[in-house]
Amino acid sequence: MPNILVTNDDGVFAPGLLTLAQEMRKLGDVNILAPDRNWSGGGHVKTLDRPLRLKEVTLADGSSAIASDSAPSDCVALALLGFFDHKFDLVVSGINSMPNLGHDVTYSGTVTAAMEAVIWETPAIAFSLGVQEALALSDYTAAGQVAYKVVENYLKHQLPQGCLLNVNIPYLPFDEIKGFRNTRQGLRVYRDRLDRRVDPRGRPYYWIGGDAPTGIPEEGTDVGALSSGYVSITPLQLDLTMYSTIPALGDWDWEWGKNNKLLRAKDAG
Amino acid sequence: MPNILVTNDDGVFAPGLLTLAQEMRKLGDVNILAPDRNWSGGGHVKTLDRPLRLKEVTLADGSSAIASDSAPSDCVALALLGFFDHKFDLVVSGINSMPNLGHDVTYSGTVTAAMEAVIWETPAIAFSLGVQEALALSDYTAAGQVAYKVVENYLKHQLPQGCLLNVNIPYLPFDEIKGFRNTRQGLRVYRDRLDRRVDPRGRPYYWIGGDAPTGIPEEGTDVGALSSGYVSITPLQLDLTMYSTIPALGDWDWEWGKNNKLLRAKDAG
Repeated sequence: MPNILVTNDDGVFAPGLLTLAQEMRKLGDVNILAPDRNWSGGGHVKTLDRPLRLKEVTLADGSSAIASDSAPSDCVALALLGFFDHKFDLVVSGINSMPNLGHDVTYSGTVTAAMEAVIWETPAIAFSLGVQEALALSDYTAAGQVAYKVVENYLKHQLPQGCLLNVNIPYLPFDEIKGFRNTRQGLRVYRDRLDRRVDPRGRPYYWIGGDAPTGIPEEGTDVGALSSGYVSITPLQLDLTMYSTIPALGDWDWEWGKNNKLLRAKDAG
Repeated sequence: MPNILVTNDDGVFAPGLLTLAQEMRKLGDVNILAPDRNWSGGGHVKTLDRPLRLKEVTLADGSSAIASDSAPSDCVALALLGFFDHKFDLVVSGINSMPNLGHDVTYSGTVTAAMEAVIWETPAIAFSLGVQEALALSDYTAAGQVAYKVVENYLKHQLPQGCLLNVNIPYLPFDEIKGFRNTRQGLRVYRDRLDRRVDPRGRPYYWIGGDAPTGIPEEGTDVGALSSGYVSITPLQLDLTMYSTIPALGDWDWEWGKNNKLLRAKDAG
């Protein structure tokens, strides 16, 4: 049986994590290590400036989990660096209560937990539910079935090194999900606005406000697949190099020795 | 004159920010909006669950800056969403007190600040100094000259949409920097270890400890260029799709309708 680590960014008591853990127990031996609170939008964190606390908690189905006062990516690091005294064959993250599409991936605690696993050479899959507004009472049943199917597939087929999967599942009844689409990362349209307010003592404070993001539902992308009722499966990597731009940078003026004097002269002036 | 926003992740009073701001003032109109504390390793954050406080501070050279109680990427969002009541032509981030190489880029506050700018369709350049240990007394003089030269180049040549530059500068005297290299993102080798300790009340706590990361100094990469004494210029993008893997995913078993019953039967069992 494969050893599967389950984490998330909505916090250890989120219903999406429980569903995911229950589905994974049908496929492997499961440990849960997740944040003790919501870390949504918290990014890819490595906490080095303070110690981390971990405590055992009991989930709604009576199973045991470890809660940490740290980011999802820290939870993955703790587990893969040996907290459980065994190795893991797979890390799954989610099921997040909202989708992680397009540019969301570098903000997302769900996806950056999977990134952390890949850095420690452990395959990882992030699962998110395509609900526009986070719903406390979301029904994760169909999404759990999708997660089961994706991981069952993964265990048969594996993934290349350095690859993580970003899976977004439409919030639809089981029979209305149209199927699966292998996609590329699409484009989000953020609609944040700066919202300036004044506190009761007359001092200003600021919200990053505005409307929830939309996206460009282009064919072949995560945004497009989800908006058409398909599960979106996007393979991601951690190499962000824009290879197409490297040649153009060769045309820039990179003379260094020649210009030392020039730059210094400007300084002196 | 271009409008240039200066931010960083070491905090608004870090010497690397002051050097960068001073160099940028030779090239444009500068505003500074940076975190009020160190956010190193803090990832790509969007703070939506609490309001943000901003206050005016005075830097060591007598110039004015805005400090925020939020992540570098939040600072960029605040500025680009209108805090200063004008648009920006360029965002520069740094000069970070340690290098940001290979997989560091998704953790790095310096680089994720530049990512945030690109999301708001503003070009951005991240600058980091290649010192292995963060030194309070690092000499940023040569790095400042490099930043000047890179931005001067940028203003002449521009960059394609969606591109940010990740610049790492060797910590060498001015005359010993060998020149510039256009690179791809290389490979970091992290050497973190889990360090379990017991507090004075007998309860365990955990550090992500171990040694500082090294890297694989391969030719053509950021790690390689920096270790050879060159300034590394890496163009990055926010599309993380591993395109080469999309075809292989087509071989997975994605039959959905057919398997609904099967999955449900397993559940029932």
